[in-house]
Amino acid sequence: VIRPPATVGMSAKDIDTPALVVELDAFERNLHKMQAAVGSKNIQLRPHSKTHKSTDIARRQISLGAVGVCCQKTSEAEIMVEGGVQDVLIANEVVGEGKVQRVADLAKRAKVAVCVDRDESVREFEAAAAKSSSTLRVLVELNVGANRCGVESPADVLRIARSIAASGHLSFGGIQAYHGGAQHIRAYVDREAAIARAVRGVKETRALLAANGLPCECVTGAGTGSFQLEMASGVYNEVQAGSYIFMDRDYRLNRDAAGKFISDFENSLFILTTIMSHATPERMVVDAGLKSFSVDSGMPELADHPGWTVERASDEHGLIDLSNRVASFTVGEKIRLVPGHCDPTVNLHDWLVCVRDDRVESLWPVSARGAVF
Amino acid sequence: VIRPPATVGMSAKDIDTPALVVELDAFERNLHKMQAAVGSKNIQLRPHSKTHKSTDIARRQISLGAVGVCCQKTSEAEIMVEGGVQDVLIANEVVGEGKVQRVADLAKRAKVAVCVDRDESVREFEAAAAKSSSTLRVLVELNVGANRCGVESPADVLRIARSIAASGHLSFGGIQAYHGGAQHIRAYVDREAAIARAVRGVKETRALLAANGLPCECVTGAGTGSFQLEMASGVYNEVQAGSYIFMDRDYRLNRDAAGKFISDFENSLFILTTIMSHATPERMVVDAGLKSFSVDSGMPELADHPGWTVERASDEHGLIDLSNRVASFTVGEKIRLVPGHCDPTVNLHDWLVCVRDDRVESLWPVSARGAVF
Repeated sequence: VIRPPATVGMSAKDIDTPALVVELDAFERNLHKMQAAVGSKNIQLRPHSKTHKSTDIARRQISLGAVGVCCQKTSEAEIMVEGGVQDVLIANEVVGEGKVQRVADLAKRAKVAVCVDRDESVREFEAAAAKSSSTLRVLVELNVGANRCGVESPADVLRIARSIAASGHLSFGGIQAYHGGAQHIRAYVDREAAIARAVRGVKETRALLAANGLPCECVTGAGTGSFQLEMASGVYNEVQAGSYIFMDRDYRLNRDAAGKFISDFENSLFILTTIMSHATPERMVVDAGLKSFSVDSGMPELADHPGWTVERASDEHGLIDLSNRVASFTVGEKIRLVPGHCDPTVNLHDWLVCVRDDRVESLWPVSARGAVF
Repeated sequence: VIRPPATVGMSAKDIDTPALVVELDAFERNLHKMQAAVGSKNIQLRPHSKTHKSTDIARRQISLGAVGVCCQKTSEAEIMVEGGVQDVLIANEVVGEGKVQRVADLAKRAKVAVCVDRDESVREFEAAAAKSSSTLRVLVELNVGANRCGVESPADVLRIARSIAASGHLSFGGIQAYHGGAQHIRAYVDREAAIARAVRGVKETRALLAANGLPCECVTGAGTGSFQLEMASGVYNEVQAGSYIFMDRDYRLNRDAAGKFISDFENSLFILTTIMSHATPERMVVDAGLKSFSVDSGMPELADHPGWTVERASDEHGLIDLSNRVASFTVGEKIRLVPGHCDPTVNLHDWLVCVRDDRVESLWPVSARGAVF
């Protein structure tokens, strides 16, 4: 682990760059806003820890009312439990003898749930849970439009759910119905239509399960881009949103029902970077590139110049094109970038530098950084 | 740091996934091939450590004849020196009082060089080197077409070089003339034309320096995509290539003079991944996504199915579309991906799992992972 780019108590202007900075006031407002939103509908919040990979943040979310966290990987779940989280859903399929056993072992230390989309997985988890004398909650993943993992039909869910319910060390935990593909659909009506289709699939499945004596205690899914739609559906009772805590450029490009950019949550995560070269008036280079921010969902934007994005990124350079812009920047000056996509950006850094009133208030390790297996 | 996904001595098929695997035979052939290529032309190899961020690999390169390494960041340089590298060029501008002093301090422990593209930097490095009683080699970066950092004209280089040479604690180390933009130009003739322009700029600059009594001991630059052109130029005497050790999909798409894909170096770096879901015949999902490979230069390719790429990547999923393909894969099976871009892919991982004859021979930490400042 690389040493932190700051020390607690220092002025924010002295943070070494590039650094990942969390503005705590905005961050805390985001946490409270989401908790209030789900609380008003009597829906359970299980925030996705893949966004922050931080046990410090997970504990804060839980202290505000979250039931626990979800995560994508076995190693993330292990780190969350190690960090004090008592209830973890691996919102993903887990395969391979070693990993399946680790999940079952972890269930002795905390409430652990996992998703499956094949019959063999039920047998594998049952054998592993029997071996470690643990009880595992198992959800069936239904493909609701993301076209990634998940079975296709209510009948598939029923078949696998029966097999889970019939297994001595497993309990049927419900339906995982996350529509990843809907999160970044820009227009509200299109997002609404995508979630409406997901909801129809879930309703049909839940009815089939109920008709066969298998009540569905939990329908979990939803992300920052769509959670209000799932909350209003009457079938989802758990929200897995993650990005709301930090936001990013991509999520802020979504539009609400009135056609305006969504402003429920604020950008609280920034890449602090230094202008390292400005050799011609048109070309300005900052000291952050592909190793400091992810570009899969577009280039980062200059926080204080909305609409100005990094033009081109190489490993450790971000080129900002000033050709048609009126601007005055000097080498050595620090500027903040809003990442294109928060999750993989956080995963590049070892530290979250937390700032309030221009002072470094705390340093949180990105505890599960690199925990991909 | 996350624990390694393997143990030394285990069978390669037991490596936990996703993991970054180095196939040592191919890797070693690449190392020897490059050393032989530069040796035959009496050119100095200073491999770029930003590719591997590994002191284990840096020491191997040096033991085969490399003069030292170059790197992009101050923290990378510190880690390389800590790991036993005695000669480091920061092939990049460094700004900010703290960092400038760290570079000067490091020059007490090893031969250290750095690049500048502004007059103020000369004064800053002189002050810092005076403070730490060290001597620093300083190169002037000339923009040779990458349009990133670097001054524009030979006259700029001369002015800054004079100022370096007149500074008590600095020595003028030559010209940094790396054409990053030329590395991935697909057609040989276009790559050749780009480097020819770079060479003209360097020749003019070198002549102006010589005419003013400033011999240019070193012209450094070149990458895996173009180094043969710089070597043949008669002006470059140091090659900074990095990616040749691993290669990636993007570099392998370059064409040689005969219009064929370049095959000087072999892919030696793979993302080992497990098929985690295959819920319909068309959709197959592997357990590696944006947190296991970089997508800035395109999606990874299936190593054993040339031309088949990952269709879509989310944080921890890679979707492979089998709609129009004849294939038989099973959940749990492990497959190797060739990364789109090796440098930022390596930077995602904490460990390089080194394999020979299907056995894990060694585990090298990615020592400078996350060393971005």
